[in-house]
Amino acid sequence: MRVDIDRDRLVDTMQEQADIGGTEGGGLHRLALSDADAEARDWFVDRASDAGLEVRVDAFGNTFARRAGADPDAAPVLVGSHLDSQPYGGIYDGALGVVAGLEFVRTLNDREIETCRPVEVVNWTNEEGSRFQPAMQGSGVWAGAHDIDEEYEKTDADRTRLLDELERIGYRGDEPAEPREPYHAYLELHPEQGPYLEETGADVGIVTGIVGLRWAEVTLHGQANHTGTTPMDYREDALVAAADVVTAIRRLPGTLGERTVATVGSLNVQPDSVNIVPETVTFTTDIRDPDEAVLDTGVTRMEAEVAAAADREGVEYDIEHTMASPAVDFPDRPVEAVADAVDALDYDGRRMVSGAGHDATHTASVCDTAMVFSVSEDGKSHTEDEFTSWPDCYRSANVLANAALDLAGRVD
Amino acid sequence: MRVDIDRDRLVDTMQEQADIGGTEGGGLHRLALSDADAEARDWFVDRASDAGLEVRVDAFGNTFARRAGADPDAAPVLVGSHLDSQPYGGIYDGALGVVAGLEFVRTLNDREIETCRPVEVVNWTNEEGSRFQPAMQGSGVWAGAHDIDEEYEKTDADRTRLLDELERIGYRGDEPAEPREPYHAYLELHPEQGPYLEETGADVGIVTGIVGLRWAEVTLHGQANHTGTTPMDYREDALVAAADVVTAIRRLPGTLGERTVATVGSLNVQPDSVNIVPETVTFTTDIRDPDEAVLDTGVTRMEAEVAAAADREGVEYDIEHTMASPAVDFPDRPVEAVADAVDALDYDGRRMVSGAGHDATHTASVCDTAMVFSVSEDGKSHTEDEFTSWPDCYRSANVLANAALDLAGRVD
Repeated sequence: MRVDIDRDRLVDTMQEQADIGGTEGGGLHRLALSDADAEARDWFVDRASDAGLEVRVDAFGNTFARRAGADPDAAPVLVGSHLDSQPYGGIYDGALGVVAGLEFVRTLNDREIETCRPVEVVNWTNEEGSRFQPAMQGSGVWAGAHDIDEEYEKTDADRTRLLDELERIGYRGDEPAEPREPYHAYLELHPEQGPYLEETGADVGIVTGIVGLRWAEVTLHGQANHTGTTPMDYREDALVAAADVVTAIRRLPGTLGERTVATVGSLNVQPDSVNIVPETVTFTTDIRDPDEAVLDTGVTRMEAEVAAAADREGVEYDIEHTMASPAVDFPDRPVEAVADAVDALDYDGRRMVSGAGHDATHTASVCDTAMVFSVSEDGKSHTEDEFTSWPDCYRSANVLANAALDLAGRVD
Repeated sequence: MRVDIDRDRLVDTMQEQADIGGTEGGGLHRLALSDADAEARDWFVDRASDAGLEVRVDAFGNTFARRAGADPDAAPVLVGSHLDSQPYGGIYDGALGVVAGLEFVRTLNDREIETCRPVEVVNWTNEEGSRFQPAMQGSGVWAGAHDIDEEYEKTDADRTRLLDELERIGYRGDEPAEPREPYHAYLELHPEQGPYLEETGADVGIVTGIVGLRWAEVTLHGQANHTGTTPMDYREDALVAAADVVTAIRRLPGTLGERTVATVGSLNVQPDSVNIVPETVTFTTDIRDPDEAVLDTGVTRMEAEVAAAADREGVEYDIEHTMASPAVDFPDRPVEAVADAVDALDYDGRRMVSGAGHDATHTASVCDTAMVFSVSEDGKSHTEDEFTSWPDCYRSANVLANAALDLAGRVD
């Protein structure tokens, strides 16, 4: 028997949070551990307390709000996402998942529904990774992927230490930043951040996994020279070699798989002067695929392209592998809970793999995990123009509520 | 009958000037109109006065030191270059030409040689264009290529106005910044800044002209998107299009002429993040050739490459043509004076076209102009590692002195 969340309250709550760190452009500027993030955290604690939830904060600022279940010893069901935003990002990314979690427990309260298992709503610390790296930091610490003391020492661009900011805003909690008990499942609602759902005319995404990714930083070392007096055959132009690799990376997915994506997103030239042949070029590569074997092949081919391009131009190179996030396949049980909710609600759902990393990447190593995606209009993300319509917010939050209730078990 | 300059004095004087704004790395950091530049100017005025020269400063800071000729009404012969340097540049670029000019008149004094024409040694303001743009600014104002009031308003990266700096260091002179009388000729000694002389085993370069150049700034406008969630066929990646053009520009000279060079020296990516598809890329193009028709063809082909690359990736573009410097052919008379001096001194000279712009570019529109090049070891320029051996400094300064004496006429 399905539940139906309160659509107006969901929208009102989304708008409440959007006022905290809201920008003139209609977006959010709520960087992790900033004053705005602190205000959003306080707001979450207040709203959770208002709903009768018991709130705890762990040593990394991850905040859990618990509704008791009929069986106090049962492993809880965890739902949520993050309230921090990108610089001048949108109002949905992260917040929708937390607000939908709140709306789920409020709906349980309204309907006086008792669940077998406890239900917890979580706000993870620093999912975005804009101010402090890496992204998905709080869930990563919680899941044991990162050492908390190392992460405490991370600094932002102003050399401010993460731990100092966490203490300043009062969110270094007493509880260890780790699962304090076994968890039954984690469900996360998040905007798709891509065009797939809109393009296929779907209402909601049933996420079956998260692509793996491999990041690298490539540096090419050529020779700076005067652009007027240096004949072409005397040059070792680091930018020419880099351009070769950019072109090769654009072509790479076509040689690998239909779901592979590969990008050079950042590129810097030294000395970067109109009349000096580029000496040093540093750029990033980002390769993603749901299949680990494809990722490994992609990295090998990227390395071969760098070597060939460097050799053609007579420059030296270094490749630093900066991040490897494994491909995650979500288990059947929570994925089918989402799919069943979509069916029960008579929505048009599409099974898909997430191209972006999420806190669910880390929770998947702790407990059964799945995700719900809402439609992202034009696939826009990490910009003030990010948009998910209220009907799409409602539908996706309704799926989350019904899937979570299924996993938590209803006491009839 | 040839003269022979004082080699030890030339070296000592080069070392004197190298102490003003000298760097720990053995180079020079003597940006135009800085305190170090002011000190170098004062030093030049002192040394010129010591040599009995009459010094005048024009309204743009160009400084002329005159030795009278037998015929006070004859058009003078002008020699010189510039004392400002690149940031952390070398000790030869510019200074060698000014010191060689001083050494020329000192040699005339030593030998009690009277010339028919007056001889002037000039230190041009801001040849390098590192702090204030454009390069070759002082000679350009003097020759009428730039409006002095516009150039006065130019600002550096700290928003300091050129005129304010000129007045602060006391080098806004009373005399109009223009030729106050017809000039018979201008000769400039400068390091080659390229590898040609060393590669051919020559002692000195007989410069027959200066290549023309065309600069442009190209901007490509794509669409920022998440690198993980945006399928390859949904992308409009500005960096991929830019890379196409960089590759095409590398290939361009091979389709034009053996002396054509073409470079993308500066390139900037926005937002420049590992996980965002590049939205905007701005880069420069620099095309040079001694032939104006080749330059025009080069620019047309560059534009066609930008259009094709933008079309392939589905991005928009703008091209701004930021600078066009015409190719200069030096007239026979001063070039042959240089060639005759090389022969008389029994040096191995090579005729060549300068790939870099010089103050001689502008003087060529005022009077007969030619240049002497000294060997640049490894072709290094605009770096502390710039090097011209003392024997090469001596030989090239000796050529300058003999060619200038030829043009000034000796009273026997």
